[in-house]
Amino acid sequence: MYRSHTCGELNANAIGKEVTLAGWVQTVRKFGSITFVDLRDRYGITQLLFGETLTPQLDNQPLGREYVLQVTGKVIERTSKNKNLATGDIEIDVTSFTILNKAATPPFTIQDDTDGGDDLRMKYRYLDLRRNAVKRNLELRYAVNRSARNYLHENNFMDIETPFLIKSTPEGARDFVVPSRMNPGQFYALPQSPQTFKQLLMVSGYDRYYQVVKCFRDEDLRADRQPEFTQIDCEMSFVEQEDILQMFEGLIKRIFKDVRNIDYTETVQRMTWNDAMLKYGNDKPDIRFGMELANLKTVFEAQTGDAAALEIFEASGFKVFNEAETVLAIAVPGAADYTRKQVDELTEWVKRPQIGMNGLVYIRCGADGSFKSSVDKFFNEEQLKTIAGIAAAQPGDLVLILAGREERTRKAISELRLELGERLGLRRKDEFKLLWVLDFPLFEYSEEENRWVARHHPFTSPKPDHISVMIENDPEIRDAANYLQHPYANIKANAYDMVLNGNEIGGGSIRIFQRELQEKMFAALGMSKEEALHKFGFLLGAFEYGAPPHGGIAFGFDRLCAILGGSESIRDFIAFPKNNSGRDVMLDAPAAIDDKQLTELSIKLNA
Amino acid sequence: MYRSHTCGELNANAIGKEVTLAGWVQTVRKFGSITFVDLRDRYGITQLLFGETLTPQLDNQPLGREYVLQVTGKVIERTSKNKNLATGDIEIDVTSFTILNKAATPPFTIQDDTDGGDDLRMKYRYLDLRRNAVKRNLELRYAVNRSARNYLHENNFMDIETPFLIKSTPEGARDFVVPSRMNPGQFYALPQSPQTFKQLLMVSGYDRYYQVVKCFRDEDLRADRQPEFTQIDCEMSFVEQEDILQMFEGLIKRIFKDVRNIDYTETVQRMTWNDAMLKYGNDKPDIRFGMELANLKTVFEAQTGDAAALEIFEASGFKVFNEAETVLAIAVPGAADYTRKQVDELTEWVKRPQIGMNGLVYIRCGADGSFKSSVDKFFNEEQLKTIAGIAAAQPGDLVLILAGREERTRKAISELRLELGERLGLRRKDEFKLLWVLDFPLFEYSEEENRWVARHHPFTSPKPDHISVMIENDPEIRDAANYLQHPYANIKANAYDMVLNGNEIGGGSIRIFQRELQEKMFAALGMSKEEALHKFGFLLGAFEYGAPPHGGIAFGFDRLCAILGGSESIRDFIAFPKNNSGRDVMLDAPAAIDDKQLTELSIKLNA
Repeated sequence: MYRSHTCGELNANAIGKEVTLAGWVQTVRKFGSITFVDLRDRYGITQLLFGETLTPQLDNQPLGREYVLQVTGKVIERTSKNKNLATGDIEIDVTSFTILNKAATPPFTIQDDTDGGDDLRMKYRYLDLRRNAVKRNLELRYAVNRSARNYLHENNFMDIETPFLIKSTPEGARDFVVPSRMNPGQFYALPQSPQTFKQLLMVSGYDRYYQVVKCFRDEDLRADRQPEFTQIDCEMSFVEQEDILQMFEGLIKRIFKDVRNIDYTETVQRMTWNDAMLKYGNDKPDIRFGMELANLKTVFEAQTGDAAALEIFEASGFKVFNEAETVLAIAVPGAADYTRKQVDELTEWVKRPQIGMNGLVYIRCGADGSFKSSVDKFFNEEQLKTIAGIAAAQPGDLVLILAGREERTRKAISELRLELGERLGLRRKDEFKLLWVLDFPLFEYSEEENRWVARHHPFTSPKPDHISVMIENDPEIRDAANYLQHPYANIKANAYDMVLNGNEIGGGSIRIFQRELQEKMFAALGMSKEEALHKFGFLLGAFEYGAPPHGGIAFGFDRLCAILGGSESIRDFIAFPKNNSGRDVMLDAPAAIDDKQLTELSIKLNA
Repeated sequence: MYRSHTCGELNANAIGKEVTLAGWVQTVRKFGSITFVDLRDRYGITQLLFGETLTPQLDNQPLGREYVLQVTGKVIERTSKNKNLATGDIEIDVTSFTILNKAATPPFTIQDDTDGGDDLRMKYRYLDLRRNAVKRNLELRYAVNRSARNYLHENNFMDIETPFLIKSTPEGARDFVVPSRMNPGQFYALPQSPQTFKQLLMVSGYDRYYQVVKCFRDEDLRADRQPEFTQIDCEMSFVEQEDILQMFEGLIKRIFKDVRNIDYTETVQRMTWNDAMLKYGNDKPDIRFGMELANLKTVFEAQTGDAAALEIFEASGFKVFNEAETVLAIAVPGAADYTRKQVDELTEWVKRPQIGMNGLVYIRCGADGSFKSSVDKFFNEEQLKTIAGIAAAQPGDLVLILAGREERTRKAISELRLELGERLGLRRKDEFKLLWVLDFPLFEYSEEENRWVARHHPFTSPKPDHISVMIENDPEIRDAANYLQHPYANIKANAYDMVLNGNEIGGGSIRIFQRELQEKMFAALGMSKEEALHKFGFLLGAFEYGAPPHGGIAFGFDRLCAILGGSESIRDFIAFPKNNSGRDVMLDAPAAIDDKQLTELSIKLNA
């Protein structure tokens, strides 16, 4: 061993000891005939004192930043102690030293507040990983991993590894594929998730399964997506939804406690998907703050809106509202005195292409009980008061109203709400609010293909009392314009998402475990019997031999870590992430391969 | 929850309780008006009693093997207790039951001693996994996983995930590759191991790293190989070989204790590669038994053999020995009275093509002090006695002698030794003997390419006192016939293998951490500067910024589990293994993919 101690463990108790340390040179400070060096390793920083004898040697062998150094010396008390450092009471009076390796000057500073840009730090990721900020992220990630494993182990879950070289069954996202040399013309696929395997393990009687496992999706990347990502993947037998919710609230609470020392004692809130959409315009609402939507006028789930509001709109003759499918409002607390400039800026904000609204209507609810709006021509103060009341506005609030097509308007007001929550400081990084969103629709309608697609995945069971609706009705959509009238449109899934601070951190469902229902599901999704058998014959087969009721959940491990670490970006929590083009710029991968490799794999490039 | 208890937990303490169980029907036994059912789940088996009221209902809804059943009833004391079963004191007096799912008759019996053949069990792997024998294997695997993680965690190792979509740098084994849709004509590779990443993590200062991680090698499969396999992968900074040996002996001892309750208190033996080859003919000797080789005549590592033996051979005029490069012997304990038939069978055994020897010479060492051999024409009894003595034969032993070309003969006698150890019952499955094999050659000579290849991998450091030999000499082999005289032939690696009962379960090395030495290594392996930079530029770059001394090890997790479980086959310890053609016969993977997928990936089949 090159050291007797790490750079993080020596304190006043060690004074007088002879020790050997090894680590990286963080700083070198020469004061006349003596030199101080801060030596860094994973565990901390220890100050080294090179006295009058050794300092001249340092002049011959000067130490640079990031040199790897081994020193031997005696632990002595510091004259000026550093209370911010675990080792701040002591320093090492160095008696001998060895430079184990030199270092070129790093292309950016190894500090929390580095001068390195994103691209440079990705190229030299091995240096970026030295920065404390990144190291803390990976330590947090490991702590989450460890905490999750311990909790699941204590609850009788078993880690069982599932294969990575499987069969391509693209549903939704694209598979990454792997040409098989030994089976020319054939390909493996990398798993998008171990979904079918964990279900087979339930059929096999393993009862409780987990894995912290890499998954792969060949999607066009967005800022916060990676082609390979990690899931905490779990499945349980003989359970109903309630059992899953309780087990996995427990998991997240345990992680809060172990990783952030947070006692999450309050009851985890639950909300139906319907309510989430109505109140927040969003299936993963951030419930750290209010500003719930007022559904003044809407067609969501065959509703019409607020009766009083509709009456006022009709009377007003204000076309923008009257001709809109949907009119939604939020009351921004204490924002009645926003300047004209501020309101104009918000208007521009909702008109950006990402949001896509035509304009923004506001009502200022004066602290004095007055109501002024941008549409005073159409509404009198009494009418404005009524509308503000529906939006639950208090004196001093600013009511913001958007109107337009249902889906776009709901999405827009949801974004606006989040943006204002952010601006008003209502989305605090150190506050954590969990929420279960329940009762998702089982199907979504695909206009393009005029058929149903699975909202979650094809293995999700309908709610128990909706199973018969699915079995007894023909999935075919004969009247595309009125697809909402098809009985399938109202089938709810036995599915649940866990939402943390407005982010979906996990999702799952109670699964179908009967062959007939699974076959009906495949048929509902437009799969022929042959196709279903070709792709999922093994699962349909397994369901014939005594499949138990089962269900599960998968957590997005990267995102969970990022949120716990108070960050927006999952990349900061991955040791070697890829950029937005799916490239590893450090490795320079992907890259061309040899012709010999292509030939062996029986493939050619198709330029 | 479909149950109040599992099928493994109820005992006499629960008598009188109302319980609900769920599980699989193992057996149904009807005795007149009552019926006994054994209900099975992961945790055990509980006996159910259907009394006179319910048995008629069972006649209407007969239970089959593997039906999924939920029952409610009262725990009662059994009249005839089963002491072999944790639940053997009680049974459930069933008051109501629900068939949760029916089951077709399984294609083979779900029993330890199943009637299912290998192919059938692989196709219905989800049923095979129900068998207790397989379940125990996966439970053992999880216990090893858990034990390893705990030990490594307690020793400050951090689990850090490394990427799966990396760059193809084929050295030795072939890479599996993944075409990139977003980067047409380019490919990712799946990692053969996280080798370079864990080294980068050491450069980044993470100090101690581990991962239980899937690795991929596109090799022609042998019986006991899988295209995807799992490693316990570890790396440490600021260590020398001794530190690694102690740390990872500790790991394996901990696993022995946690998983098999074995206190492995004896010192783990160590042996140089030279000694292993001389004494056992093998770099992974099984030291559970003796029968060490007598090197009567040899050219191994420029040795000549035993002086007394050489003199006897010369005097004898026995061409077979005199013209052979190598003559090796073992003394088989207590086998002097093998029948002629037994000896003939052994002779046939060594003449099989897999072994490839021309014949077998024997000396019977009589309990009475006599010596008789198959070559009595050439050797007198005194000479036979001397040779037997060199082989350390005792009265009653049978000395077996092989002669021929060095490499083949050494391999053959090693195989013969293992075979006889097996036949004599000296290789006990419940006896575990660990061994470190040290000081491997750094290079092997490739006759085909007339160059050096890395025996371990290109990142392994030479022994400290051999570094200068490597730096100061030109790797080029000018005289191919005498490559053994090249200074590189004698460079030993700072590498170590851990051997358990004759199986390599782990291997590693102290790594090169200096750019110049790493460049010299790439050059020695015939890589041009450009090629080295293209493939490993990131690692060479990393070594410029303060790389610490480091080293590590990787354990073959599948094999380790198999040996601990007393099995020869790693497949029995993998939930969803592939067959010898790399196929998953349950999924029917690999398989053809859609033309659309090929087009998107910018590749074509090359039939």
